[in-house]
Amino acid sequence: MSNESSPTSLSSDTEEVVDSRSETPIITNVNIMGTTFFRSNSGIKGEEALEGVDAAIYQLHKVAIKAYFQSYSIKTRIHIMRGEESHKNLTEMTSLVDALCDYGLKRREPFYAIGGGCVLDVCGLAASTYRRGVPFIRVPTTLLSLVDASVGVKNGVDYDCCLTETSYKNRLGTFYPPLAVVCWPGFVKSQDRRNLSNGCGEIVKLALVKSEEVFKLLEEYGGELISTGFGENGEEEIKAAAGRIIEKSIEIMLQELGPNLYEFELERPVDYGHTFSKVVEMAPGADIMHGEAVNVDGFFSAILSFGRGWIDETTLIRIYKVMKGLGLPVASDFMTEENCLKALEDAVEHRHGKQRIPLLKDCIGNSVCVSDITKEEVQGALNFLPYFLMAMGGN
Amino acid sequence: MSNESSPTSLSSDTEEVVDSRSETPIITNVNIMGTTFFRSNSGIKGEEALEGVDAAIYQLHKVAIKAYFQSYSIKTRIHIMRGEESHKNLTEMTSLVDALCDYGLKRREPFYAIGGGCVLDVCGLAASTYRRGVPFIRVPTTLLSLVDASVGVKNGVDYDCCLTETSYKNRLGTFYPPLAVVCWPGFVKSQDRRNLSNGCGEIVKLALVKSEEVFKLLEEYGGELISTGFGENGEEEIKAAAGRIIEKSIEIMLQELGPNLYEFELERPVDYGHTFSKVVEMAPGADIMHGEAVNVDGFFSAILSFGRGWIDETTLIRIYKVMKGLGLPVASDFMTEENCLKALEDAVEHRHGKQRIPLLKDCIGNSVCVSDITKEEVQGALNFLPYFLMAMGGN
Ligand SMILES: NC(=O)c1ccc[n+]([C@@H]2O[C@H](COP(=O)([O-])OP(=O)(O)OC[C@H]3O[C@@H](n4cnc5c(N)ncnc54)[C@H](O)[C@@H]3O)[C@@H](O)[C@H]2O)c1
Ligand SMILES: NC(=O)c1ccc[n+]([C@@H]2O[C@H](COP(=O)([O-])OP(=O)(O)OC[C@H]3O[C@@H](n4cnc5c(N)ncnc54)[C@H](O)[C@@H]3O)[C@@H](O)[C@H]2O)c1
Ligand SMILES: [Zn+2]
Ligand SMILES: [Zn+2]
Repeated sequence: MSNESSPTSLSSDTEEVVDSRSETPIITNVNIMGTTFFRSNSGIKGEEALEGVDAAIYQLHKVAIKAYFQSYSIKTRIHIMRGEESHKNLTEMTSLVDALCDYGLKRREPFYAIGGGCVLDVCGLAASTYRRGVPFIRVPTTLLSLVDASVGVKNGVDYDCCLTETSYKNRLGTFYPPLAVVCWPGFVKSQDRRNLSNGCGEIVKLALVKSEEVFKLLEEYGGELISTGFGENGEEEIKAAAGRIIEKSIEIMLQELGPNLYEFELERPVDYGHTFSKVVEMAPGADIMHGEAVNVDGFFSAILSFGRGWIDETTLIRIYKVMKGLGLPVASDFMTEENCLKALEDAVEHRHGKQRIPLLKDCIGNSVCVSDITKEEVQGALNFLPYFLMAMGGN
Repeated sequence: MSNESSPTSLSSDTEEVVDSRSETPIITNVNIMGTTFFRSNSGIKGEEALEGVDAAIYQLHKVAIKAYFQSYSIKTRIHIMRGEESHKNLTEMTSLVDALCDYGLKRREPFYAIGGGCVLDVCGLAASTYRRGVPFIRVPTTLLSLVDASVGVKNGVDYDCCLTETSYKNRLGTFYPPLAVVCWPGFVKSQDRRNLSNGCGEIVKLALVKSEEVFKLLEEYGGELISTGFGENGEEEIKAAAGRIIEKSIEIMLQELGPNLYEFELERPVDYGHTFSKVVEMAPGADIMHGEAVNVDGFFSAILSFGRGWIDETTLIRIYKVMKGLGLPVASDFMTEENCLKALEDAVEHRHGKQRIPLLKDCIGNSVCVSDITKEEVQGALNFLPYFLMAMGGN
């Protein structure tokens, strides 16, 4: 995973022709795995198109990308973008807007966004504001973005406020549906282990609140998924398991988000692990990724469920083992009482007056939203955690 | 009209109490003139609210604004903003976003936008992107914004592209409805003549394509409207005429925009005067305001209609006289053949493959959209214009 390129419009690439299709598998159809959620039916084939592409992806999958567009007779014009949270900001967005102006993108002409969740989020905000909205096509390239940012209509950039001197995650963004989403799991094999684990953070979350089937697959294949590029470099069996996990995850996301795209309903099972994670994620000095933070929160929430007697000890231990098997952290130094209480307050604010925090209930695959988590409950769970970890042999 | 203040959050003002309500008329009800299009029915009364306020307006109408909010028991927190096109940009927007962060505006908490079209446009974009959208209440303070930016769901900022070194009007924006619009014509009396004329540019346009009644009122009261602060400082009769003009203009805008808020329909009578105006408005060195440019285009379009035999000479002369009576320019050095042809091209691009330019047909108050304006027709109209002006006794 390299990030050396700076964000420049490689317009000299425009005419480049790709001869070899062998280096990486070629995307031959946008409808891969039955997960094309929208399909553009006009104006794309046989024209020129601008692509905002993640720097890492461009280095790793250049040939596949070029071949893909060539197979649709689309001349490519690549604008290199920087992935990573530290570049998910207005500066990166205006650099893309510059490229869109320079390219002369018209009001109803789509462009492609190819990259991880950060590039997709920046591209989404640019697409929704450029000329008051142009169509864009999402091509998620990380495991996390494949199962999460791919679905749904949200985008956003982080924002550093000059007055409060605070950095706010996703402070500026919109709800804006993409024209199409192209899902190709082949990209993820070039991700390192940590990024793959990170993606699994969101998958574990989905399994916990919605699918015992996915949970069992994670239980069975666990670490092997990580060591084989999420199945891409493994045997048929593991590849099939990985495929099923991705398919099912996207299916759940579509089911959960589809009827509630604009979040009028604020009690969302998919918000599991997304309450305490926010303070951990944004804590200055915390070297933690989104899916990792979600997992830390997800395990803490499982302890809260356990504390209420809603799941039993066996279940808690199974959850712990799956998480560890996937190389995910279950605790963080930033999960202090102060931060957790702050997170509860933020939740009330963000979810319009109530906590609305999903907890596990009865079995894996089932959740309920609660709004009555107390300070004492949080303290109890925080006290319990280190003892549990010690019993398991350490975090 | 003064613009000396810099954009700062006057948080020291938070507690200020207004004792005198006499300096300017007080807005006693949001439903003034029956032109409150939306009404907020929750969470506003009796709380604190943040207001993004045009610097000029804050100086001129501070007492009225404070009294208004006090009458609703709303504590005010003023964020001063710079009006004028030169400040309608991302910098002004992020300065407001800083204030919103500092104020701690919640996800479903409205803020007020009080000012001319520029402030309203900047506030609208901030509202639509801050936390992926918060409610905002528009309070237009210029004649132009009262009859135009008040209605509709558009916002936007101009954008300077680093790659093309070009400035693009409204290049970044969204379609985003305000929670409510508070219309109080009392603000406009502090506008200078040029700004009032500018507002009349949009009113003349509406009259030409949709209302002979408004056209006749403009014909009758013309210059007097400008010299009396659009009726506000005049006798009852002129005040009533002005009121009727504003009311009718808003009514037309609601009729025209309401069914087509997101501009899926691209043939819009209200786009009259909005084709050639764009190149004139954005031409480097052109000291021309939006409504003035719309008027120049509107008169040129009338000549095109006359050239096609769609309106007669008497009508053309009536139009000319109304425009001059309101202090509006009917020609510009920037209406060159080159610029006009460029504008035609841009129209085709902007309106998805066709010119779709409204021209006058048969009588005042009626228009049709055409897509077949030729180079020769433009040349003919450009040649005709100076002769017509000479015959009328000069531009
Ligand atoms: N809009 C949504 O609905 C939504 C949903 C989930 C997450 N997100 C956002 O997504 C972001 C996280 O996304 P992410 O985890 O994809 O991180 P990321 O986009 O920062 O990517 C991580 C790193 O991997 C590189 N990369 C991308 N694809 C690669 C590949 N196939 N092989 C090797 N390297 C690759 C990137 O250049 C980057 O350096 C967060 O900001 C989060 O808020 C948004
Ligand atoms: N979003 C829309 O639907 C829409 C519609 C029409 C116009 N617009 C935009 O509106 C802008 C033009 O608006 P405008 O003509 O109101 O200009 P403006 O907002 O620049 O205001 C002109 C000047 O008047 C000052 N001012 C405001 N209210 C005043 C008052 N009551 N008395 C004295 N001074 C006052 C302002 O500070 C500014 O200096 C353009 O950018 C145009 O694109 C938007
Ligand atoms: Zn997430
Ligand atoms: Zn206009």
